[in-house]
Amino acid sequence: MKLSYFASIEQADREALAGACVVVIDVLRASSTIVAALESGAERIIPIADVATACRLARPGERVAKILAGERRGLPVEGFDLGNSPLEFTPERVAGKTIVLTTTNGTRAITAAAKAERVVVCALTNVDAVAEAVRGAESLAVLCCGSEGSVAAEDLLCGGLFLDLLGDFGDRGALNDAARISHLLASRFGGEVETFLRECDHGRALASLGFGDDIAACAAVGTSRLVPALREGAIAR
Amino acid sequence: MKLSYFASIEQADREALAGACVVVIDVLRASSTIVAALESGAERIIPIADVATACRLARPGERVAKILAGERRGLPVEGFDLGNSPLEFTPERVAGKTIVLTTTNGTRAITAAAKAERVVVCALTNVDAVAEAVRGAESLAVLCCGSEGSVAAEDLLCGGLFLDLLGDFGDRGALNDAARISHLLASRFGGEVETFLRECDHGRALASLGFGDDIAACAAVGTSRLVPALREGAIAR
Repeated sequence: MKLSYFASIEQADREALAGACVVVIDVLRASSTIVAALESGAERIIPIADVATACRLARPGERVAKILAGERRGLPVEGFDLGNSPLEFTPERVAGKTIVLTTTNGTRAITAAAKAERVVVCALTNVDAVAEAVRGAESLAVLCCGSEGSVAAEDLLCGGLFLDLLGDFGDRGALNDAARISHLLASRFGGEVETFLRECDHGRALASLGFGDDIAACAAVGTSRLVPALREGAIAR
Repeated sequence: MKLSYFASIEQADREALAGACVVVIDVLRASSTIVAALESGAERIIPIADVATACRLARPGERVAKILAGERRGLPVEGFDLGNSPLEFTPERVAGKTIVLTTTNGTRAITAAAKAERVVVCALTNVDAVAEAVRGAESLAVLCCGSEGSVAAEDLLCGGLFLDLLGDFGDRGALNDAARISHLLASRFGGEVETFLRECDHGRALASLGFGDDIAACAAVGTSRLVPALREGAIAR
């Protein structure tokens, strides 16, 4: 297996993503929200990089109404139906629905991986299921989204747990710096994920915005068996 | 003390650098080479971001000859007097001389910090001396150079050791993700620095280019008491 590993979208080599199975990790919160929405029965999620395009895609008066969801700087976008909190995506709100989602980092990563052979969405909540699902891939790229160009410790932690669960993927000595750092974070903090998430940059920022409850939801390791995958521009089970 | 911490030049907030004491870390190899050159008696080092400007500054026929040094992609630049290997900067070659230095990451970081109150160059070789020298700073910014936008584990390791040596800098709970990762690397690998440097991305790349001997030189923690500082565009003791 050929393994590439990137600590932020900006650090990702587009050529390494093309043709690979890309595992997109944005723990706080896009990946976790996508898993939660699909667990609540959402039919599909259309990831969109920018707000204007998202708005155009979900304009009122369409035959099939779409839910417009997402955030900028952690907060719901003005006029949107939902923000980016996994707790908002209840069966009552999203079952059977199509969601148009735009977030600062996660949906940008998914669209950056447009030329990939396969794109799967990985959160802590479904990290085991994703590791099982992609184990046979010939070329695998782990894309930790980070935060607007900076590394995000929670994404690296999740990537490290993913590598551990993946098991034998060839030469561990050939892991790059970002993968080795992730592995170290997983060994050190894998047993106290929620505390780790509360203390990292993005966790503290979310708590200060009033989204402290989201963190426990995002830290629930292995509670979902779903492997959300991108097909023809939409993410489904 | 206000502490900012950045894992790559691209992640650095220019406003946080302005007015701060900026500690520039590029272990492999610009910081280590600058310390080595000054230890060998070089009078001053002029850090330049690009090759063309470096060439213009060190053109032949000047009254005071300058040594032209640096690398791109690890290798000496065609026609330059020296590369970027600390072992090349011997007293025979550089004592009393002015060196014009351009490297892929390190000199770019130094020039990016142009509006800083103070810029000091930190390698593993002088990390203790730098920590002592900047301990009183009101606003401190640690700039790990990384490698062309990606994190470099050896710079984070050095940054972590620097934080440990700095001692009390206020609220450790307020450390950002990059600083916490650095701290973890220092606790885990601070006792086996040379092995760590040999295994990291940049260390392996240097070894494959034939610069394996540089790594031991760059890993010699605390062997220099020099604190190279930028003054009027040049780095001196």
